[in-house]
Amino acid sequence: MRAVRVHEYHSDPRIDDIPEPTIQGPMDVIVRVGGAGVCRTDLHILEGQWAAAMGPELPYVIGHENAGWVHEVGPGVTNVAPGDTVILHPAPSCGLCRACRAGKDMHCTNNFFPGLSNNDGGMAEYLRTTARACVKLDPSTNPADVAALADAGITAYHAVRKSIPLLYPGTTAVVQGAGGLGHIGIQCLVALTATRVVVVDRNPDALALAAKLGADETVVADGTHVDAVKDLTGGAGADVVFDFVAEQGAENDGWNMTARDGSYYVIGYGGELHIPTLDIISTERNIIGNIVGTYNDLAELMVLAQAGKVSLHTVQYPLDRAVEALHDLDAGRVRGRAILVP
Amino acid sequence: MRAVRVHEYHSDPRIDDIPEPTIQGPMDVIVRVGGAGVCRTDLHILEGQWAAAMGPELPYVIGHENAGWVHEVGPGVTNVAPGDTVILHPAPSCGLCRACRAGKDMHCTNNFFPGLSNNDGGMAEYLRTTARACVKLDPSTNPADVAALADAGITAYHAVRKSIPLLYPGTTAVVQGAGGLGHIGIQCLVALTATRVVVVDRNPDALALAAKLGADETVVADGTHVDAVKDLTGGAGADVVFDFVAEQGAENDGWNMTARDGSYYVIGYGGELHIPTLDIISTERNIIGNIVGTYNDLAELMVLAQAGKVSLHTVQYPLDRAVEALHDLDAGRVRGRAILVP
Amino acid sequence: MRAVRVHEYHSDPRIDDIPEPTIQGPMDVIVRVGGAGVCRTDLHILEGQWAAAMGPELPYVIGHENAGWVHEVGPGVTNVAPGDTVILHPAPSCGLCRACRAGKDMHCTNNFFPGLSNNDGGMAEYLRTTARACVKLDPSTNPADVAALADAGITAYHAVRKSIPLLYPGTTAVVQGAGGLGHIGIQCLVALTATRVVVVDRNPDALALAAKLGADETVVADGTHVDAVKDLTGGAGADVVFDFVAEQGAENDGWNMTARDGSYYVIGYGGELHIPTLDIISTERNIIGNIVGTYNDLAELMVLAQAGKVSLHTVQYPLDRAVEALHDLDAGRVRGRAILVP
Amino acid sequence: MRAVRVHEYHSDPRIDDIPEPTIQGPMDVIVRVGGAGVCRTDLHILEGQWAAAMGPELPYVIGHENAGWVHEVGPGVTNVAPGDTVILHPAPSCGLCRACRAGKDMHCTNNFFPGLSNNDGGMAEYLRTTARACVKLDPSTNPADVAALADAGITAYHAVRKSIPLLYPGTTAVVQGAGGLGHIGIQCLVALTATRVVVVDRNPDALALAAKLGADETVVADGTHVDAVKDLTGGAGADVVFDFVAEQGAENDGWNMTARDGSYYVIGYGGELHIPTLDIISTERNIIGNIVGTYNDLAELMVLAQAGKVSLHTVQYPLDRAVEALHDLDAGRVRGRAILVP
Repeated sequence: MRAVRVHEYHSDPRIDDIPEPTIQGPMDVIVRVGGAGVCRTDLHILEGQWAAAMGPELPYVIGHENAGWVHEVGPGVTNVAPGDTVILHPAPSCGLCRACRAGKDMHCTNNFFPGLSNNDGGMAEYLRTTARACVKLDPSTNPADVAALADAGITAYHAVRKSIPLLYPGTTAVVQGAGGLGHIGIQCLVALTATRVVVVDRNPDALALAAKLGADETVVADGTHVDAVKDLTGGAGADVVFDFVAEQGAENDGWNMTARDGSYYVIGYGGELHIPTLDIISTERNIIGNIVGTYNDLAELMVLAQAGKVSLHTVQYPLDRAVEALHDLDAGRVRGRAILVP
Repeated sequence: MRAVRVHEYHSDPRIDDIPEPTIQGPMDVIVRVGGAGVCRTDLHILEGQWAAAMGPELPYVIGHENAGWVHEVGPGVTNVAPGDTVILHPAPSCGLCRACRAGKDMHCTNNFFPGLSNNDGGMAEYLRTTARACVKLDPSTNPADVAALADAGITAYHAVRKSIPLLYPGTTAVVQGAGGLGHIGIQCLVALTATRVVVVDRNPDALALAAKLGADETVVADGTHVDAVKDLTGGAGADVVFDFVAEQGAENDGWNMTARDGSYYVIGYGGELHIPTLDIISTERNIIGNIVGTYNDLAELMVLAQAGKVSLHTVQYPLDRAVEALHDLDAGRVRGRAILVP
Repeated sequence: MRAVRVHEYHSDPRIDDIPEPTIQGPMDVIVRVGGAGVCRTDLHILEGQWAAAMGPELPYVIGHENAGWVHEVGPGVTNVAPGDTVILHPAPSCGLCRACRAGKDMHCTNNFFPGLSNNDGGMAEYLRTTARACVKLDPSTNPADVAALADAGITAYHAVRKSIPLLYPGTTAVVQGAGGLGHIGIQCLVALTATRVVVVDRNPDALALAAKLGADETVVADGTHVDAVKDLTGGAGADVVFDFVAEQGAENDGWNMTARDGSYYVIGYGGELHIPTLDIISTERNIIGNIVGTYNDLAELMVLAQAGKVSLHTVQYPLDRAVEALHDLDAGRVRGRAILVP
Repeated sequence: MRAVRVHEYHSDPRIDDIPEPTIQGPMDVIVRVGGAGVCRTDLHILEGQWAAAMGPELPYVIGHENAGWVHEVGPGVTNVAPGDTVILHPAPSCGLCRACRAGKDMHCTNNFFPGLSNNDGGMAEYLRTTARACVKLDPSTNPADVAALADAGITAYHAVRKSIPLLYPGTTAVVQGAGGLGHIGIQCLVALTATRVVVVDRNPDALALAAKLGADETVVADGTHVDAVKDLTGGAGADVVFDFVAEQGAENDGWNMTARDGSYYVIGYGGELHIPTLDIISTERNIIGNIVGTYNDLAELMVLAQAGKVSLHTVQYPLDRAVEALHDLDAGRVRGRAILVP
């Protein structure tokens, strides 16, 4: 089969012809890929930024945002069968550790991350995953339309879902960064809460789209945006700030626009917080980490997607043009999410 | 191997010599039984009360409260290995349905209940269960000492754990029924909360033991006990009532001793509630169902047990004297819990 | 001033000319009534059904669903000033007991209920309440437009808000009884969750309106409705059932259409539940009481109302035609809510 | 009356003879002080560190940790009467804002802080507070014995109470800093949870006392303590770290000993966190602010205190020797808490 493989860091990946993956354990599932999202993390992988943390042996197949059709299942698999349309949780979990038994797949002590850890990913014709990663979809779903929700979507949904108890009517939520994840975050906020949604971004076009998706207020991140959020909230700041940027100073802006008794949700990364402990206690504010999401988060998000409440603009590229898609993403030429289609 | 099998209802079970169970699926685990609790539910099975609901083909092996040592594992099992000491969640769950993915094993849409459903139980030398039912114990643990926690224990723990947010200092909890489950419930309340614990039972000996285990107040259930609980709470009633009886009128007593804005936890069964909806809304009281518990509930309870915070008096019987143990239980001659030891 | 007073039970009230209420304590507030809702409870009061529970001395002014303008305040009042537009929590609370300190106004041990307890209500030109009952509104609000939210609205909102954690995407909620409260409940569910909303009512017109308000499915309560709900949920039943009827058998229907691990919310009243404790524990279902709501519930609901997300059809009657309004309500001639306007 | 007043910063306060406070509003309460705790914050006040934030006009009376007997009440006060023994929430709240209506007294938008804000505190014979600050105690309580719980106690209790859902059996909690607050925190953890308590401090004597109070493990903060906590937790770190120090590098130690999916509770202050956002998201850890506590927190803590579950060693000084007490505290000569007794 054809597959997009990294051979060395700081170089383009290559389209190789490699053997199809095979069932290795009783819970394994082979999926025929219908769509594989191209993510900024793929660019970071190519730059070698994940080499130390994940340590994959090169060459390996990238692609961690996948949907498709079940092709073959191991002897212990009971939840899906060949032919089923599925979207895949990015990190198949063991189902046996404490975290799994509490539903926290992303904290499984035995999970793996195809396309990121030392396991082939989904920019290929076929992918090996496990039964516990498969969310069954309506057969009429086109996998390429939803693949981007497997990683970008679940991450935004997870953060918003955790915040629901904080966002009762009369509160204000800020979404900082109205890119792919931010747009999904806005739609999730609108679907799941009645909070007022304020979106902050440098890009007026992104803000225009945010307004269409239901943002109540938009603020250009031009250096006066912390004050603008304060003005919109009677000086108090936002009850919850979702920071999809969290680098280049946005992280301290995000903290500074968080209200007393409020919570600053970190979702993006790259920057560094510098916060006096006095600021934390005198206002009793919280800083909340967020990473991917649970299997049930993804299943719930698919309910929203199939009801038309969450969608993401996508641009399809044939698998053979994967390098072009990566270059386009790097150059800022992709609107929404690039999806590879075998 | 020897096994205690029901051949027909309304008759004593027999000790048969049958083949050992074998691995049937990749996640299966064969356990050498070290202790099998004898439960009132076993008497109900023999009376045919569960025939319709569970429909086991006769003859079959009873025993749903088991601990022992891992004997053999299927090819997909990674959490336990032969020789490990384990206590078994009574209802092996699939790990793939929504309930399992939320950690709610007892609501698994595919679980089974060895010894109760159409699957052989643990009153035998060996038992077939699955990897997801095995809680690994310190190797020094004697399975016969803890087996009773696998069903009686988890059920009491589950109810108490759910109530923790309601039982802050200054509240009152009533435990109605200080038998095996009730005694575990009392110990869990003492270990997990600082609530005042009031125990209600007909039997003064049971109340004396309750006081030793940490009950703050004991009340004889002599017909004045609802008033007695009211008196102990300034007329208000208890914030949470745990009803381990829930039959023969206790269920209405339990409801009547529940305070405004309080919750009545049903754990026992057999009776019928008769409650005007006006009584429910005018006081905003809740009635909370409770059934078994999650895998993590059992794992947490074992932490308490191994720290000496929860224990249950047991009486051991050799497996061959299972019928005697059942007769003793039926006749009220067992103090604590009868445990069959192969 | 003119006021609608009950002089004897089983008779129409009379429009009397009585002195205006005066400030009696430092936190008192006199409100010029702008709208007073006519509620089914007022009919029950006239029938003497509340005489024993509330014991008001006759004659007294009824009307417990009120909005208007602040007319005069006691020396300790700091949150409102004469001229402010306000909607009134129906049960002014003390602010000093444990329940108040936890935000649970409806469980205040010292609250009173003007129009129901031995305190004059709002079917009059002026009403005495306290600072803690006043929710300040945008000055442009017409009190007559929102008065019905003070009791009918808060009650529906309170129940829905409590259920939010249970109603994630993929769940089903049933609203049984699509009258005034039910219609507000539907709108609150749509605003605050992404659950699927199924509405059950005998009246096809009410169902048609429910669909307009956002119900996903409607079911005629014709005796097959429990089965219909089961069919709509793959046989499982609803995760949450909101029973705004809870009499004449609806209460047992509501319980029977509640899914395993689900919750049956009682809001209406008049009937009696008959439930074997075995049914409660074997499915781990809950029965949840609901009464009025908190001050913050009312404040949050007003945010929804002012954003146009919750509204209720009203029919205005001049105060002098109060008896006609009561007769119309009794005869089923009122669509939505009758509001008296002084 | 005699009172300890600050006349200028960077100087000792003086014992002045000033008029007794008088009732100013209908909810005011004058308390005859029975005990006033001497807190490290008082030293910071004398150094002028709170001048900018609180802006009290000099001279003013310090002392924000008070208990005593009700002396006089305003006309609107119904919860206490002259002669009642009371402990005082340090920040009387309005009872009318959103935060108060949700029970969050410390986030009241109108509260004040006698002894810290521009209001006379409790190092005096009499103190003016309000009805909403008074927690009534058993008449036999000696106010001097419990006064330290009014600020040090409530702060530790509040943090521990918030963490209860995270600290199920099998988890580990670290208490960093076993001084006055830390000792109360340890006792609260033992009373309210079954978590394993690990205490970290530089001072072996403090650790010895911690062990007596129920700590399961103690670790000397000698530079290897982060590793020591990791070793005690199988490399994982603690589920919750309570940092009562949060300065001089302890804040980064505290963060570093927090496990994946864990929470770092900041209670002390003075230091500055430096945390890459990647560290927050990749492990999904949280940083939780904590400030004082709610009125109900204090009431609950008094239940624990009156049951003998929480106590703090105190050293009494006559009010006239306040300066000596402050000097002793500054010089590290006070064991437990210094209490001024008029």
